[in-house]
Amino acid sequence: MVLDPDTAAALSALLGERFSIREADRRLHTGQETHHVSLPPDAVAWPVSTEEVAAIVRICAAAGVPIVPHGLGSSLEANVSAVRGGLSVDMMRMNRLLRVSTDDLDCTVEAGLPREDLNAALRDTGLYFPIDPGPNATIGGMAATRASGTSAVRYGTMRENILNLTVVTPQGEIIRTARRARKSSAGYDLTHLYVGSEGTLGIITEITLRLHGRPEAVIAAVCTFPGPAEASRTAIEAIQIGLNPGRMEYLDAGAIRAVNAYSQMQEAEVDTLFVEIAGTEDEVETRIALFREIAEANGCSGFRQARAEEERTRLWKARHTAFSATVAARPGSRGWPTDVCVPIGSLAECIVHAKGLLADCPVPYAIMGHVGDGNFHVVFALDPNSPEDEAVVSAINAAMVEKALSVDGTCTGEHGVGLGKRKYLEAEHGPALAIMRRIKAALDPQDLFNPGKILPDDHA
Amino acid sequence: MVLDPDTAAALSALLGERFSIREADRRLHTGQETHHVSLPPDAVAWPVSTEEVAAIVRICAAAGVPIVPHGLGSSLEANVSAVRGGLSVDMMRMNRLLRVSTDDLDCTVEAGLPREDLNAALRDTGLYFPIDPGPNATIGGMAATRASGTSAVRYGTMRENILNLTVVTPQGEIIRTARRARKSSAGYDLTHLYVGSEGTLGIITEITLRLHGRPEAVIAAVCTFPGPAEASRTAIEAIQIGLNPGRMEYLDAGAIRAVNAYSQMQEAEVDTLFVEIAGTEDEVETRIALFREIAEANGCSGFRQARAEEERTRLWKARHTAFSATVAARPGSRGWPTDVCVPIGSLAECIVHAKGLLADCPVPYAIMGHVGDGNFHVVFALDPNSPEDEAVVSAINAAMVEKALSVDGTCTGEHGVGLGKRKYLEAEHGPALAIMRRIKAALDPQDLFNPGKILPDDHA
Repeated sequence: MVLDPDTAAALSALLGERFSIREADRRLHTGQETHHVSLPPDAVAWPVSTEEVAAIVRICAAAGVPIVPHGLGSSLEANVSAVRGGLSVDMMRMNRLLRVSTDDLDCTVEAGLPREDLNAALRDTGLYFPIDPGPNATIGGMAATRASGTSAVRYGTMRENILNLTVVTPQGEIIRTARRARKSSAGYDLTHLYVGSEGTLGIITEITLRLHGRPEAVIAAVCTFPGPAEASRTAIEAIQIGLNPGRMEYLDAGAIRAVNAYSQMQEAEVDTLFVEIAGTEDEVETRIALFREIAEANGCSGFRQARAEEERTRLWKARHTAFSATVAARPGSRGWPTDVCVPIGSLAECIVHAKGLLADCPVPYAIMGHVGDGNFHVVFALDPNSPEDEAVVSAINAAMVEKALSVDGTCTGEHGVGLGKRKYLEAEHGPALAIMRRIKAALDPQDLFNPGKILPDDHA
Repeated sequence: MVLDPDTAAALSALLGERFSIREADRRLHTGQETHHVSLPPDAVAWPVSTEEVAAIVRICAAAGVPIVPHGLGSSLEANVSAVRGGLSVDMMRMNRLLRVSTDDLDCTVEAGLPREDLNAALRDTGLYFPIDPGPNATIGGMAATRASGTSAVRYGTMRENILNLTVVTPQGEIIRTARRARKSSAGYDLTHLYVGSEGTLGIITEITLRLHGRPEAVIAAVCTFPGPAEASRTAIEAIQIGLNPGRMEYLDAGAIRAVNAYSQMQEAEVDTLFVEIAGTEDEVETRIALFREIAEANGCSGFRQARAEEERTRLWKARHTAFSATVAARPGSRGWPTDVCVPIGSLAECIVHAKGLLADCPVPYAIMGHVGDGNFHVVFALDPNSPEDEAVVSAINAAMVEKALSVDGTCTGEHGVGLGKRKYLEAEHGPALAIMRRIKAALDPQDLFNPGKILPDDHA
């Protein structure tokens, strides 16, 4: 317990019922149950404004109490585990859509707004926010982990879709990282410094997002391939000729098998690509025909497409249920998704390498990939009480990361570092890690913001 | 002269003929002649490798000698002026294209490679690098100033098109800011921290760039409007419906008048929009027809379009020569381009505001804008020997910046801060400026890298 009674009293005076040291509230703020250490904070605060967050930070900073920002808690690498105790700042009551501009194609939201709620609120504007990590998540959490999902191949990740942030610094100052102009050359790019900083440099309280027009038409397709080489060659050629697909997702045969069992479906149990082409009514027809040509030249069989929304949903059902199906196939298991990302020309090689590692794997798994980004996951269905499972999966994960780094890829494409990927940062960044440490020390000299995350312990 | 004889001797021993203290060489490294103070360095170095840059930096850092990285010297805000003397590190002999991958759609170049040379080298690959600031410029200089140009509306700026950088830090360490994966959540985004840092945090020596497929077909169009409101409304609606134009450029009536005089053309002297639509053969026809509909609904008259390259060039000639024509209209004058960028919905209001400021302006000028980005320039043809001209233009520039900031815009869309825009950073960034200062102090504690740039003098 690093939260002393005086600090607790000050927070309680500031927040009233929106401050809690109850065991039940603390337990709800350890993050997703994963293979990592999920430690509860000493207390939880629910601020309702940026000014209130600043007041909380000033109280904690004066007392040396760690602060861990918290959204929906869906992050996968123990990103919100309170490893040094302190205060969890739960952003879920800051969930307003503050403004929308259809002319500027942007909006400003509070950090605790979940992405699904944002898109529901935007429904009548003709605009939407496309970034879609698997589960629902807050915009603040997505910004903090530099999240992406299935639509990054077309729209980029959180990195490309944030115009500015309001941040409370470790000194309790409120800053805005940039203006609302689409581009600027006015000094250091603070926006991108905080995007992906996982709460270690300050708390993001507001976010201005780029929005995109809902496409007039969408065609979905599913095509099966002999293996990952043919599927990823198809993705590469589609990108090269500028087809600009909305989504391009890969499932291996194992994933389809799990889905068939889970959803009583009869899909062919082979490597499969799920594609969406978006655009005007005319364009999508031309483009999907071009895509089919490319796919068939690369050995695709069983090409199916659909245009009506209901049919598209049915066609993509396997993709949408793959994670749940994989975990459900082993009752009582917990999902552990790996997350490497590599240059797309090396993707097939890395998937084949992973399949080699997985050949004798006793833990059930499936492979799924955002193939247009070079990002793929192996989802393991782990027995949470089996140290053997943990050891096997850890070793495979480490070998996948090593392979990804050997082809100039990264140890995490979209999940973030948290606790889980810290051990790979030295290998990934080398001497650049010293620059990250200098920045952390300069902006958070007391090391109070989400301590123990991202940067590995410094034994130098 | 801050370069002491021992340091000069050490640099000379390292570089031989590629180190110079000759007056003529120093004079060539003051940057573009502008309304700002262009001061020469004490000496110039021409390294040929990243390792040599690191050796140079270590020698200078040990002696406290300032370092100013230098490319083609085309920056506009005295970004390379050696205000505290020291060494200009001229990157022009590091001009190799190091690798290209057509599968990964990327390439790695040395910082001194000019963008036009890069595109010439890429000609046979089907790929190109679209970012095009007005004059030719090195990729390193474009990265350092976060440059853009006419194609940012479709492809983004340097910010969106750099995968990683090799940087020599002020400590003389060589770092790489990221891997070659298209996306990553592995720690702080150092790439974006150095992009736009104008040599104040280190020297960029290599850049990995995203490349883009050359479009199958391009249609260019020119359309005239009653005023900026109608032109920018057309741009907004084209973006909203997802037309994704390749370029959308605005010239005011004055710019067209200057071009007509300069190039013996007979264009209608009214506000004009220059558009390019790129895509597949079929698509461009559909899209230009849609664009025309939107333009005509917004009061466009005189819509002309062209498809063959030669005709497109003729159609766009006014846009390409507008800057030169404006300056040439007043013999002996020098061009001073302002550079604000605002949310696109406020663009017309800001152009109208600028026209108001310009109503009685005795200095010849023209307005040109990257209308899809909300970025526009007033190009003044200044008498370089007239303090009156300078005073008038400075006042108009300041009022334009103030207006841009009032609508949540920025004081510079693409030229950078250099010396010229430092005085606006406090108004633009407020308390965020303190974070920029912390970062500068953490990464360059001796303040040796391009000192006196970006950050205003701290009188706190």
